Amino acid sequence: MIQGIAASSGIAIAKAYQLVTPELTYEKKSIDNPNTEIERLEKALETAKQELEKIREHTKKEMGDEHAQIFSAHLLVLDDPELVNPIKDKITGENVMAEAALEETTNMFIDMFKNMDNEYMRERAADIQDVAKRVLAHLLGVTVPNPALIDEEVIVIANDLTPSDTAQLNRQFVLGFATDIGGRTSHSAIMARSMEIPAVVGTKEITDAVKQDDMVIVDGIEGNVIVNPSEDEIAVYKEKQANFEKQKEEWAKLKDEPTITADKEQVELAANIGTPDDVDGVIANGGEGVGLYRTEFLYMGKSQLPTEDEQYDAYKKVLEKMEDKPVVVRTLDVGGDKEISYLDLPEELNPFLGFRAIRFCLENEDVFRTQLRALLRASVHGNLKIMFPMIATLEEFRQAKGILLDEKQNLKNEDKSVSDNIEVGIMVEIPSTAVIAKQFAKEVDFFSIGTNDLIQYTMAADRMNERVSYLYQPYHPAILNLISTVIDAAHAEGKWTGMCGEMAGDSIAIPALLGLGLDEFSMSSTSILPARTQLRGLSKEKMASYKDKLLSMGSTEEVIEFVKEKTE
Amino acid sequence: MIQGIAASSGIAIAKAYQLVTPELTYEKKSIDNPNTEIERLEKALETAKQELEKIREHTKKEMGDEHAQIFSAHLLVLDDPELVNPIKDKITGENVMAEAALEETTNMFIDMFKNMDNEYMRERAADIQDVAKRVLAHLLGVTVPNPALIDEEVIVIANDLTPSDTAQLNRQFVLGFATDIGGRTSHSAIMARSMEIPAVVGTKEITDAVKQDDMVIVDGIEGNVIVNPSEDEIAVYKEKQANFEKQKEEWAKLKDEPTITADKEQVELAANIGTPDDVDGVIANGGEGVGLYRTEFLYMGKSQLPTEDEQYDAYKKVLEKMEDKPVVVRTLDVGGDKEISYLDLPEELNPFLGFRAIRFCLENEDVFRTQLRALLRASVHGNLKIMFPMIATLEEFRQAKGILLDEKQNLKNEDKSVSDNIEVGIMVEIPSTAVIAKQFAKEVDFFSIGTNDLIQYTMAADRMNERVSYLYQPYHPAILNLISTVIDAAHAEGKWTGMCGEMAGDSIAIPALLGLGLDEFSMSSTSILPARTQLRGLSKEKMASYKDKLLSMGSTEEVIEFVKEKTE
Repeated sequence: MIQGIAASSGIAIAKAYQLVTPELTYEKKSIDNPNTEIERLEKALETAKQELEKIREHTKKEMGDEHAQIFSAHLLVLDDPELVNPIKDKITGENVMAEAALEETTNMFIDMFKNMDNEYMRERAADIQDVAKRVLAHLLGVTVPNPALIDEEVIVIANDLTPSDTAQLNRQFVLGFATDIGGRTSHSAIMARSMEIPAVVGTKEITDAVKQDDMVIVDGIEGNVIVNPSEDEIAVYKEKQANFEKQKEEWAKLKDEPTITADKEQVELAANIGTPDDVDGVIANGGEGVGLYRTEFLYMGKSQLPTEDEQYDAYKKVLEKMEDKPVVVRTLDVGGDKEISYLDLPEELNPFLGFRAIRFCLENEDVFRTQLRALLRASVHGNLKIMFPMIATLEEFRQAKGILLDEKQNLKNEDKSVSDNIEVGIMVEIPSTAVIAKQFAKEVDFFSIGTNDLIQYTMAADRMNERVSYLYQPYHPAILNLISTVIDAAHAEGKWTGMCGEMAGDSIAIPALLGLGLDEFSMSSTSILPARTQLRGLSKEKMASYKDKLLSMGSTEEVIEFVKEKTE
Repeated sequence: MIQGIAASSGIAIAKAYQLVTPELTYEKKSIDNPNTEIERLEKALETAKQELEKIREHTKKEMGDEHAQIFSAHLLVLDDPELVNPIKDKITGENVMAEAALEETTNMFIDMFKNMDNEYMRERAADIQDVAKRVLAHLLGVTVPNPALIDEEVIVIANDLTPSDTAQLNRQFVLGFATDIGGRTSHSAIMARSMEIPAVVGTKEITDAVKQDDMVIVDGIEGNVIVNPSEDEIAVYKEKQANFEKQKEEWAKLKDEPTITADKEQVELAANIGTPDDVDGVIANGGEGVGLYRTEFLYMGKSQLPTEDEQYDAYKKVLEKMEDKPVVVRTLDVGGDKEISYLDLPEELNPFLGFRAIRFCLENEDVFRTQLRALLRASVHGNLKIMFPMIATLEEFRQAKGILLDEKQNLKNEDKSVSDNIEVGIMVEIPSTAVIAKQFAKEVDFFSIGTNDLIQYTMAADRMNERVSYLYQPYHPAILNLISTVIDAAHAEGKWTGMCGEMAGDSIAIPALLGLGLDEFSMSSTSILPARTQLRGLSKEKMASYKDKLLSMGSTEEVIEFVKEKTE
């Protein structure tokens, strides 16, 4: 049994699919016959080509054209005489073996393209790298994993799952994930929750411990992976799986119930979404609103900015689907770890402390105004709330709100209809804003605490950096104190406070947050029903009576122990 | 007149010395006669060699062997046939002009060395780059600046001054600096203050506006640079210069006076230092202690860790020179922007949020224990206080203090004498620690607020990143609130709070900090006497009466205006 971090609930039992690039090493030898090497190269190129065509067709059929495009790009590389001829020339001219000729030639192109100040060419460098690896593997007679071709039920085992890995996965057959690295907020964890499949991340050793086709159990409830389980173990986990399904049925009964605590206090349970399609999951899981609509996805995977109309359509779709339930839309949060190639953002030494989100928007007003116009036009189709990310100073909020009001006036002048009931709030994810929340509360309509960033800035620890991720402590008393400051400041002015970081859906955090007076909890859709179940068993008054005690604690461990003891 | 940021006080009037690398561009042409190109190359190599030998001798004479070493390394590169022959081969074999042969060949070596996982080879890459630039300049007939050869009084004009630039400067003749980029906390600003010469940084345009040998006035009091001043202007600034000298004499009278406010309250004015030699400046400027001894310098510019005895000698020297005045030593703060090659720190995406300081020391206990032993042994020679940097959690403090007590016991067991009156405190530079200062105050002996980092984490803005440096706001109400929380928490437990960031020496900040109750202000030595002068004119009681007002303000601008108004 291997211990990791429970990233997405449930139990999955299936064969392992090792999504690990094999080692592609060889001994460089001189050759006698260049013609043999040319033949070997041509054969490897042909095999790679057939393989890529198969993957492209399969992906197109299963997942659509957009996902298949990357393989078309790879095929173009394979067919490019500007790349293939120099490899052949190297073999004949310098008498080197095909492997070395391939690697040295492609590396030269990769270095050249990588160093160009041009996102398009850098992407070509990545394509060449992928293709070169595939051809080299065929030369060496080793197998490359082709996740797009998976056609039976498997559990994916990987060091980490990148966005490009998950884009290639055939979701129909992937029952679960287990990875070496990552935490609850890493890309692979968020993907697993959105796919509603069990996942365990951060096991440190899963790729070493599991071989291709080993039988594997992923326990996303406890955060364990069992490798080659016995019959008995399989039986135990099948029962656990059945119980989990039963529990899900129990949870499902609360789908249309309000979120009410044991002492009859009501809070709101909302969902975080990335695209209009995600709304189906929100509704299926009984979400009472959208607490965070991340609009970055509209800007990603494209070659240019989305138009006002494209954005309007997306926002309208979300608002209409949610009917009159609140939808909090966060304006563009780009930069940091979110790159958008055509925006040509500066390379930064510390991107998390850099030119991001509202900082970018206030300096690129045309981009910002287009989004605000689309939002304002969509506002008549539902219950829209607009929120600005990464606000560090009151001036930034005033400036952003000024631009919003300006565009509202412009739309009115153009005789377009705009709702007059749009609340305008901010993300509280920078410590400065939490510290002087009192001053902000006089001017904003609401706060939404973004704990993912707030924690990393407050603890000065990059949550993606494994060396310091132990400092990413959601229950640290400093974090609870800042959250409490924000909630109290809002309530003193008759405003509400939500939370849209991972913490809002966490079963240890929920009792504490209830006690601190949080009004809205926004989380992954699949966490809503378990949270509603938990909240129905909690007394808000009782949790509130522990507030001072919690805020004066010295460590995360004390907080966890105390909350566990008081909610047993 | 060009406006910049006043980085170091005083007035300097002299000729400009443009420390700017000229543009080294050329049109690539085919050649008729390779022999002519070889001759041109050899001539340029010879000129570069003579120049480098001259610089080396001059540097050796003026600044000592250590500073001259880099030029010996450059001369070795010039003489290396492994580098020079391939250039010549390229000229004859490929019929390319000398410039292109030089550039392409050296770039190949630079790329190769740079990509090696080896600090030594990366340094060789930098040497080759420097030498290639020099030879190319001679091929093109343009002049390279040679700061080491300056032998008349000048004002250095540069885009920015790097540590390697300043190491090459002949300090005797440099009367002042003016740079395009940088702020009060950038390397060039700190250097100027330690050299006690006027400097203006962040002018954005000084290298464009000034030509070599232009007459220039640097006004480090107001933050202005006057280019080619009129006779009248020179007269005005000569008077200003004389007045500044007079003011310095006035300040000097307070050298041995205590730091007492108008209402007879005493505070401590201490200095930040980097090496034992800096203590002379502290004493000359009437420092009442060392508020921050940055021990990183002991670890830098070396090929291995300093031994316990080397460290002991350095600490002892500082403690003895300071007699019984307090000396606060900060344990190793490595990582972030401070690299130490032989420690082989991980490359990080966000180094400011990474594996730094106490985080590194707690995982490398041998390095940490050696430093603590050296400190403990030195403690009998003066009034030592030990402080841990980058503390984010109570556990980290407890762990660090545990190791300190453990080594103290070990030394006692070895019959070595150790003081029993060493205060053990922490830097408060991470928001979490400021927020729960109350919990910390029960366990630490003192706090020292490190504003440089505290501000950048609290505002989530990298202070070195020009795109967001406008958010580096020392007077932001959130910063003042955190400072106030820390001071109040300390006083409630009968402990003291100091500040060792740039803010402590700032004339706008001083009145506010006095009002918040700060006990110790630690700054650049040269700021001590002006600060003492300012404090003698301030009433602590009056400033304290503005505390609530200051803490409830909404913006930096409000704070600045208010403080100015109340201290006029």
